[in-house]
Amino acid sequence: MQKIAVVGGGLIGQGWAVVFAQAGYTVAIYDPSEDVRKTVRNTIKQRIADMVSAELVTAFLGEKMLEQLTVAHSLEEAVEGAIYIQENGPEQVEIKKKLTAELDALVSPDVPIGSSTSGISASRYCEELNGRHRCLVVHPINPPHLIPAVEIVPSPWTEKSIVAKVDEIMQNCSRETILLNKEIDGFVVNRLQGALLDEAFRLVGSGIVSAADLDKAIADGLGLRWSFMGPMKTIHLNAPGGVADYVERYGRMYQGFDLHADTDNTWDCVTRQSLRAELEAAIPIDDIPEAQAERDKKLMALIKHKQQN
Amino acid sequence: MQKIAVVGGGLIGQGWAVVFAQAGYTVAIYDPSEDVRKTVRNTIKQRIADMVSAELVTAFLGEKMLEQLTVAHSLEEAVEGAIYIQENGPEQVEIKKKLTAELDALVSPDVPIGSSTSGISASRYCEELNGRHRCLVVHPINPPHLIPAVEIVPSPWTEKSIVAKVDEIMQNCSRETILLNKEIDGFVVNRLQGALLDEAFRLVGSGIVSAADLDKAIADGLGLRWSFMGPMKTIHLNAPGGVADYVERYGRMYQGFDLHADTDNTWDCVTRQSLRAELEAAIPIDDIPEAQAERDKKLMALIKHKQQN
Repeated sequence: MQKIAVVGGGLIGQGWAVVFAQAGYTVAIYDPSEDVRKTVRNTIKQRIADMVSAELVTAFLGEKMLEQLTVAHSLEEAVEGAIYIQENGPEQVEIKKKLTAELDALVSPDVPIGSSTSGISASRYCEELNGRHRCLVVHPINPPHLIPAVEIVPSPWTEKSIVAKVDEIMQNCSRETILLNKEIDGFVVNRLQGALLDEAFRLVGSGIVSAADLDKAIADGLGLRWSFMGPMKTIHLNAPGGVADYVERYGRMYQGFDLHADTDNTWDCVTRQSLRAELEAAIPIDDIPEAQAERDKKLMALIKHKQQN
Repeated sequence: MQKIAVVGGGLIGQGWAVVFAQAGYTVAIYDPSEDVRKTVRNTIKQRIADMVSAELVTAFLGEKMLEQLTVAHSLEEAVEGAIYIQENGPEQVEIKKKLTAELDALVSPDVPIGSSTSGISASRYCEELNGRHRCLVVHPINPPHLIPAVEIVPSPWTEKSIVAKVDEIMQNCSRETILLNKEIDGFVVNRLQGALLDEAFRLVGSGIVSAADLDKAIADGLGLRWSFMGPMKTIHLNAPGGVADYVERYGRMYQGFDLHADTDNTWDCVTRQSLRAELEAAIPIDDIPEAQAERDKKLMALIKHKQQN
């Protein structure tokens, strides 16, 4: 069986370990903290148990997945013989530089080193490495074992064969890969989320709508189609003549919205003035873990539903 | 039984007729075109049949809904005795002015007149009417009989009691109402969609990502949570300390994205250069009706799923 190394045993690393094991890979997970190394097997076991409860994996497969997982006691042990390294270190350029250099020295040059970073383009930490041709960003959406989308962001030096190899591994893991042709801050997922949040903060900050009502615009409106069809396909189907017809009909309207009101609607201002009070009244901070568990249950049920429809 | 008048028998009017009948109201639908009046009962019947197939309504209720529906032969007949008027006329200010004036003359002043318009604020057509206090926008998302979100946008003169009356009717219809505190172009739903589409056009237009891969960022990523939880609740649950903590952690990153590249990324330019070719290769114009039918099937299955989870 082929082996994948997961470096870093936090939430993202745990999620990746589940993804790779579910696909049939042997997984070695390593974390520099001894505490994490002691507990990570059990936390992953719990994640798998939740997936079994949601009927996303069978109990039989769940057992197998655990058998395929080992917790390594050193970086060397983790990466030995691995065909791919998924790095989940802290989000700091200097740490990424040091960690990736270590990995680069340990691992054969044809093995891709993918980073889960959501904010640091690979060029910022790999430029000076011998193995910069095999470094790239492989960014999952949290939680990685439930959300299929993965962004693949090559650096200017990443070889096409490395991108192809990562893409193939991700296909084997039933991931939906988003390939970026060049590096850009925030990649695609967070840029789209950021654009929508920006307008949401402006609308709530200008007193046009409450956060609760704004949420309905997505959760009971746009988000329904978007859960099985992206925004481009959505507009292509929303005019008899497809996307060109849609832009002809509605482009001027959309582009005419004045998106920049002159009130102080920066995010922290809106949070201070109203948003924080409203959201914390709806879900007090102490209730967040329970609400997160509820969210993940719904997410698993939705994923199961999508598999059947 | 209480009666609601639906004025205009196009797709939106048909959808509203289904919504009101499903809730238990008697519905009179009127369209100035004799052709539409002749066919509208059958097209509504087909919509109800699709809902029965998707187990969104029982066959028994489907029959009852059709019994509650009459096609009126005149505007007068449609609105007589109605407790609410849902107007679905063409999207032109002059036509809305004339039609709303006619309705205003025919209907008792305590009966709300809601317009399905997606682009024309009520103040633009009702200012000069005696009954401007009972005019407002009640904007559904297409298709209205499937998507629960409804935007309620009062004009500056709309009385609170009228808004409350409309809100109550919408609650009776199991709609999820989004109340706007003041008029704004595009309301909330289309402004949010517009902000996301704007960034999508920039990303595709700059050659960063294909439309197909961008769609995965939503349909296999962000859209999953968004189908049951809006973006505000999503971020509130995405940091241990709730929304204020989220803004503290990520606000600077999101607000730092340079959303305005200097390339010509206006929508029609992007469509001409690449988007149209890609989307029409994926779904040729002739296949759009079939893809729409598939979309509506998935939408109905999703709505059924949400009712059970």
